[in-house]
Amino acid sequence: MTKRTIKLNCDMGESFGAWTMGADDQVMPYVDMANIACGFHASDPHVMSKTIDLALQHDVMIGAHPGYPDLQGFGRRSMAFNEEEICELLIYQIGALKALCESKNAELGYVKPHGALYNDMMRDQSIFRAVVDAVSCFNLPLMILASSNNQDYLDIADRYDVPLLFEAFADRTYLANGTLTPRSMPNAVLKNEDDILGQVQQIAHYGKVTSADGFVVPIEADTICVHGDNDEAIGLIARIRDLL
Amino acid sequence: MTKRTIKLNCDMGESFGAWTMGADDQVMPYVDMANIACGFHASDPHVMSKTIDLALQHDVMIGAHPGYPDLQGFGRRSMAFNEEEICELLIYQIGALKALCESKNAELGYVKPHGALYNDMMRDQSIFRAVVDAVSCFNLPLMILASSNNQDYLDIADRYDVPLLFEAFADRTYLANGTLTPRSMPNAVLKNEDDILGQVQQIAHYGKVTSADGFVVPIEADTICVHGDNDEAIGLIARIRDLL
Amino acid sequence: MTKRTIKLNCDMGESFGAWTMGADDQVMPYVDMANIACGFHASDPHVMSKTIDLALQHDVMIGAHPGYPDLQGFGRRSMAFNEEEICELLIYQIGALKALCESKNAELGYVKPHGALYNDMMRDQSIFRAVVDAVSCFNLPLMILASSNNQDYLDIADRYDVPLLFEAFADRTYLANGTLTPRSMPNAVLKNEDDILGQVQQIAHYGKVTSADGFVVPIEADTICVHGDNDEAIGLIARIRDLL
Amino acid sequence: MTKRTIKLNCDMGESFGAWTMGADDQVMPYVDMANIACGFHASDPHVMSKTIDLALQHDVMIGAHPGYPDLQGFGRRSMAFNEEEICELLIYQIGALKALCESKNAELGYVKPHGALYNDMMRDQSIFRAVVDAVSCFNLPLMILASSNNQDYLDIADRYDVPLLFEAFADRTYLANGTLTPRSMPNAVLKNEDDILGQVQQIAHYGKVTSADGFVVPIEADTICVHGDNDEAIGLIARIRDLL
Repeated sequence: MTKRTIKLNCDMGESFGAWTMGADDQVMPYVDMANIACGFHASDPHVMSKTIDLALQHDVMIGAHPGYPDLQGFGRRSMAFNEEEICELLIYQIGALKALCESKNAELGYVKPHGALYNDMMRDQSIFRAVVDAVSCFNLPLMILASSNNQDYLDIADRYDVPLLFEAFADRTYLANGTLTPRSMPNAVLKNEDDILGQVQQIAHYGKVTSADGFVVPIEADTICVHGDNDEAIGLIARIRDLL
Repeated sequence: MTKRTIKLNCDMGESFGAWTMGADDQVMPYVDMANIACGFHASDPHVMSKTIDLALQHDVMIGAHPGYPDLQGFGRRSMAFNEEEICELLIYQIGALKALCESKNAELGYVKPHGALYNDMMRDQSIFRAVVDAVSCFNLPLMILASSNNQDYLDIADRYDVPLLFEAFADRTYLANGTLTPRSMPNAVLKNEDDILGQVQQIAHYGKVTSADGFVVPIEADTICVHGDNDEAIGLIARIRDLL
Repeated sequence: MTKRTIKLNCDMGESFGAWTMGADDQVMPYVDMANIACGFHASDPHVMSKTIDLALQHDVMIGAHPGYPDLQGFGRRSMAFNEEEICELLIYQIGALKALCESKNAELGYVKPHGALYNDMMRDQSIFRAVVDAVSCFNLPLMILASSNNQDYLDIADRYDVPLLFEAFADRTYLANGTLTPRSMPNAVLKNEDDILGQVQQIAHYGKVTSADGFVVPIEADTICVHGDNDEAIGLIARIRDLL
Repeated sequence: MTKRTIKLNCDMGESFGAWTMGADDQVMPYVDMANIACGFHASDPHVMSKTIDLALQHDVMIGAHPGYPDLQGFGRRSMAFNEEEICELLIYQIGALKALCESKNAELGYVKPHGALYNDMMRDQSIFRAVVDAVSCFNLPLMILASSNNQDYLDIADRYDVPLLFEAFADRTYLANGTLTPRSMPNAVLKNEDDILGQVQQIAHYGKVTSADGFVVPIEADTICVHGDNDEAIGLIARIRDLL
């Protein structure tokens, strides 16, 4: 069996004005893809610019990480926008980041929606279509959640000629049907480092994940999402990096 | 003597969320260039999108009209940004509008900064350079205030390969040195319609303006800025249109 | 039969920065209660201050009209706040308006939540309790929607010693169960002026309303909500005023 | 010679939404007065509420710390408001915090403007009067910068019956005229801990400060401002506390 090459992606550039979030300069050396916030749920033009510089320095692929316009809620609250408005707010944010990239001869490589918009896109086909429609304007791939339903999303995205990238999570548990255990459940998050490393290895090398209730489920993922919130998390990313 | 062809430009797309400003649909048929706000001092992605549609419908050239991030103050308050930050906030806004244009196969044609940023750019060379630097990333012309100092600005812009468009004002009075009478002066604004039409004709056809104290001053302008705030203003725009 | 005295309330102070909404100065003479926006979904400290002045001038009772923090959406989008946060954002907004009132020796008379927060409060008991909890800090009455379920809300509010004011709508149709016809229904809004005046008279003088499908339903209302968005609406308010 | 009792004040509650700033829970035990941000330049209703709880727990006096409405700039950029607007935005913010305090039976004890508003107030008498006017509505003292000009400010504040509290800085150097060395100067900030402790002792016990160029200058201060940005700073606050 051939080893798959799987990439690490991480949310980056989530500082805002005087507020710092994340240790981007410590995480950037270990990841392949940086999801850069676009100013609606986090970041501002200056933070975006500095984050592009950092990604360039470490030769990390840059992705747009657009969200709902809700700084106070960090884009984690679902907001009632219609499909047209979702398409517009995505084009706005992606266009803004793309222009900042181009001003530095950096390339924008993909789009991954943030927070509530990501969740809304995964559960509501009309929102997913609006997202795909927006992304199709840029000839970029869209990153979404890997699950056993990958094909359903591929079918829609194909109509817009938008390639999909599927991501799995290093530290989230899975249900037997290949979806994430909801965060409201007590065992939604893996805390033990060996468990996390084991899950990463299983996803990356075997294309499978063992669900919380013990079933081995196939999962096709192009990339694994990691978090760099604190020193411990950064150490873990380094070890995941070594593993892959 | 050859008549010059001079274009009319107007600030557009200054509504925000539930708030309407301006009668864009009534003004658009009469103007050549629409300065579209980019979401920092006014507008939002949906308003921007609708305004691009309206400009397309009337075959009006689209310009980006970026401003300081101050919705409450409508971008009319100067804000302390350094040159790097000004460059970044301009690229962000222009890039956002450009992407919305491209999603509709519309073309972005030029950039004209708004409000306090426009004034700051005209009075501070380091800010002007930051603006020119940002605009140079898009290969677009920059619209600035026509004055007797046009050449000073051209010298700087040339270094960045940025063409300049100079605008005059239909309803503002001028000083003998070819600059605008400051708004703090009682006679800063022309109120009489014949006076306004006369000034437009003089600028457009003869490249001159008569200053408030009676001197005839040369003024090189590519475009005249008009305002469409109310019914009276729209009637005036229609008559300026007839005149040109 | 004794005529009831019923008051007219109207949303006021919904301008923001450079954007004007509503014709407050034309409406204020005709209403008894002004629901003044508090800066989260509309308004700012200056608009609030001017609106208090206008209410004082016409001897109109001042109410706080707090909403979700969403200027772009005008507070019309539901946002996921927990009860504690709803209580906090209400106290913040009511406190801000109250202080501005007191600085002018004006009195704050009641609280009426705005938009999505109003709707959320009416449909979700835990949110209603959070609202009542916040209002109880100010010893003020809370204005809510009159329906056939008035008693359910009174039972909860009594526990917090918060008096309730019930409002009916001049131009909305009712269902046979005494609730409003949802806005998604074609006949949700009364358009004919005679129908509106008839409904106002029936509510105000007889404590009843005729539902869209012809049933006469009892409705206990202390106040009727009117809108002053345009010239026609203002004329209608004047005629409702005459009627009462 | 009697020792003066001098209080320590610190800016608190400067987190916003998902962004944390400062280690309030570690600093609160060591200070006497907490300047709590009011939602315009930092904080939100939830952060304000939690910060009041923390101050109550440690029996720390609560002050309102209002600023300009500029989250991205953290209130550090001067903004062009007229006196009336400054008064209004202060009343709004102080009123909001006061209501949150009262909802918890906490008392609001004073007002200290933040950032650019603080600096503008110190250098422009008309802005200072607007601030004093706003604070006078609450019967609270106003905290301002101690300098050799204390009497000038007292003269104005007396007309509005507003008591003043004067603050000195532990880690800023002074000029021979008793004002702070501007931050643009290389020696504006004391870095050596012994120097800082020495300056605190001199101010607190002797009412004097030694200027950067060696003059001993009288300075009347009621309170010393400290910062709790990082572990080192918190250790320093603890040692200043011991000293007093």
